[in-house]
Amino acid sequence: MKDMALTIPTYDDMLEAHERIKPHINRTPVLQSQYLNELTGAELFFKCENFQEPGAFKVRGGSNAVFGLSDEMAEKGVCTHSSGNHALCLSYAAGRRGIPCNVVMPRTAPQAKKDAVKRYGGTITECEPSTSSREAVFAEVQAKTGGEFVHPYNDPRVIAGQGTCSKEFMEQTDGLDMMVAPIGGGGMISGTCLTLSTLAPEVKIIAAEPEQADDAYRSFKAGHIIADDAPETIADGLKVPLKDLTWHFVSNHVSDIMTATEDEIIDAMKITWKYLRIVMEPSCAVPLAIILKNKDAFAGKRVGVIVTGGNVDLDKLPWMMR
Amino acid sequence: MKDMALTIPTYDDMLEAHERIKPHINRTPVLQSQYLNELTGAELFFKCENFQEPGAFKVRGGSNAVFGLSDEMAEKGVCTHSSGNHALCLSYAAGRRGIPCNVVMPRTAPQAKKDAVKRYGGTITECEPSTSSREAVFAEVQAKTGGEFVHPYNDPRVIAGQGTCSKEFMEQTDGLDMMVAPIGGGGMISGTCLTLSTLAPEVKIIAAEPEQADDAYRSFKAGHIIADDAPETIADGLKVPLKDLTWHFVSNHVSDIMTATEDEIIDAMKITWKYLRIVMEPSCAVPLAIILKNKDAFAGKRVGVIVTGGNVDLDKLPWMMR
Repeated sequence: MKDMALTIPTYDDMLEAHERIKPHINRTPVLQSQYLNELTGAELFFKCENFQEPGAFKVRGGSNAVFGLSDEMAEKGVCTHSSGNHALCLSYAAGRRGIPCNVVMPRTAPQAKKDAVKRYGGTITECEPSTSSREAVFAEVQAKTGGEFVHPYNDPRVIAGQGTCSKEFMEQTDGLDMMVAPIGGGGMISGTCLTLSTLAPEVKIIAAEPEQADDAYRSFKAGHIIADDAPETIADGLKVPLKDLTWHFVSNHVSDIMTATEDEIIDAMKITWKYLRIVMEPSCAVPLAIILKNKDAFAGKRVGVIVTGGNVDLDKLPWMMR
Repeated sequence: MKDMALTIPTYDDMLEAHERIKPHINRTPVLQSQYLNELTGAELFFKCENFQEPGAFKVRGGSNAVFGLSDEMAEKGVCTHSSGNHALCLSYAAGRRGIPCNVVMPRTAPQAKKDAVKRYGGTITECEPSTSSREAVFAEVQAKTGGEFVHPYNDPRVIAGQGTCSKEFMEQTDGLDMMVAPIGGGGMISGTCLTLSTLAPEVKIIAAEPEQADDAYRSFKAGHIIADDAPETIADGLKVPLKDLTWHFVSNHVSDIMTATEDEIIDAMKITWKYLRIVMEPSCAVPLAIILKNKDAFAGKRVGVIVTGGNVDLDKLPWMMR
């Protein structure tokens, strides 16, 4: 991929994506908590993508890819590799169109996510929890099925789909100063950059990353992509590295990347469950963790936080495991 | 009370209450889950009162009582007894008006609820977990403080406030066939009856009660109030008995009362957390439990479910305790 010309999705692609996926997604609500505002000194707005039917924002990008296929292309279905939410959201979208979906998932992915893929009719092939194993196993699956590859984030259709979240978010709030989203491979952050750089260029975009999987942070500081093979963090959705397309958006439009420790992430997760009363994944707690850790950077600001997903194993909550 | 003439709140009282409390409450969102619809065969709409700032619908009735007081009456503050959510919602409302709030709570009330009362500036006096102890301790507290007694449910101001929930619910949905809410003392159900009997009399109102605290069910069948002193159920908000005012609404407007076992309640709670991805109390799971148990009664219907509150001890989730 590195030597090929990049297909950068445009603002119009995002608008088209929104029209295309509207019948297949929820316009998720934005919640607020006076208590969390007092705790942080900021005015926080939480866009609850955990309330998508398959439980994650990735239904936006997945639906855009699936419903954008020609009938001929759609026949062989779609395939992908994913730590979880892209797998189940793509399966969900493929199921709605009635086409096959083959996914490669690390054997360590949360059981709740594997169960959902199966429930939506997807077919799982397991790999080891490393980028190298994942890509090798995926090559076999793709060769066998011939399905259309929908990369979990480094795909213009996916990024345009994810960008629809920020469009709704801006419509639902009366202006924001900053937008914070977690960063793994960079799909949501890239979609956010795509939308806000045209719609609301005054909004500062901050990416939030686990300290134990801080490859995007190090890439951002170094000025080029640094990829780790198999980082370990409770934020299971954020282990994958940036790729050329997401790097384009991150390097051009992100104001800062901030990191949080595992304990800070778990604390922020529990606080959100308790005071916002939503079920969300550890990955979604990284934004609040960095806001609590860097209060001065956010104090007095209107801050949008994208709650990316809610597929959690309710029998293994992280604050009970430490 | 029994021999006094009842002050039955009217539909106009409810409309006035809504105007009065709007600045102090959230217009909570209505969520849906395709999966829960498939599971039940009904079309379910969940009104998320757990997303009120103090985490429960009772902020409606509490705010209506607190903000309806004359300045003179407000001076000595308010007092009440409550298993939890009314205590913390009344404390919250009193805090917003800047007046004192004294509450009597059973010593067994969830710690999360006691902590919230203190956080909002309320003062707690503990009693034993029985109706008799609660009423005795409360008499002392009221005599000492002289505050205005705001009964958790047997109060026209409170019932008018709770009725605003169904008004919003009907505005947010395109017609409903049935409305299901949990029943303890009957405050929410009475408010629901008050509103729907005028606004949408075609909607059947079903009350959902724990089998282990089924005094409302037995009262409904017997045609007069039957009160238990200290029932035991995981649905801690539903242990209290009906009183004359709530009995008026229940006996005149409720179509049916259905019950669920402790295990059915816990199962329904976990299913809701998993698929709707909201944090809610065991009490709020009783409606889904009775829907799952009596599928024929709800199949093919548009059913509103009031999710009453979300103040849960996250370290003691009931499916981990059995």
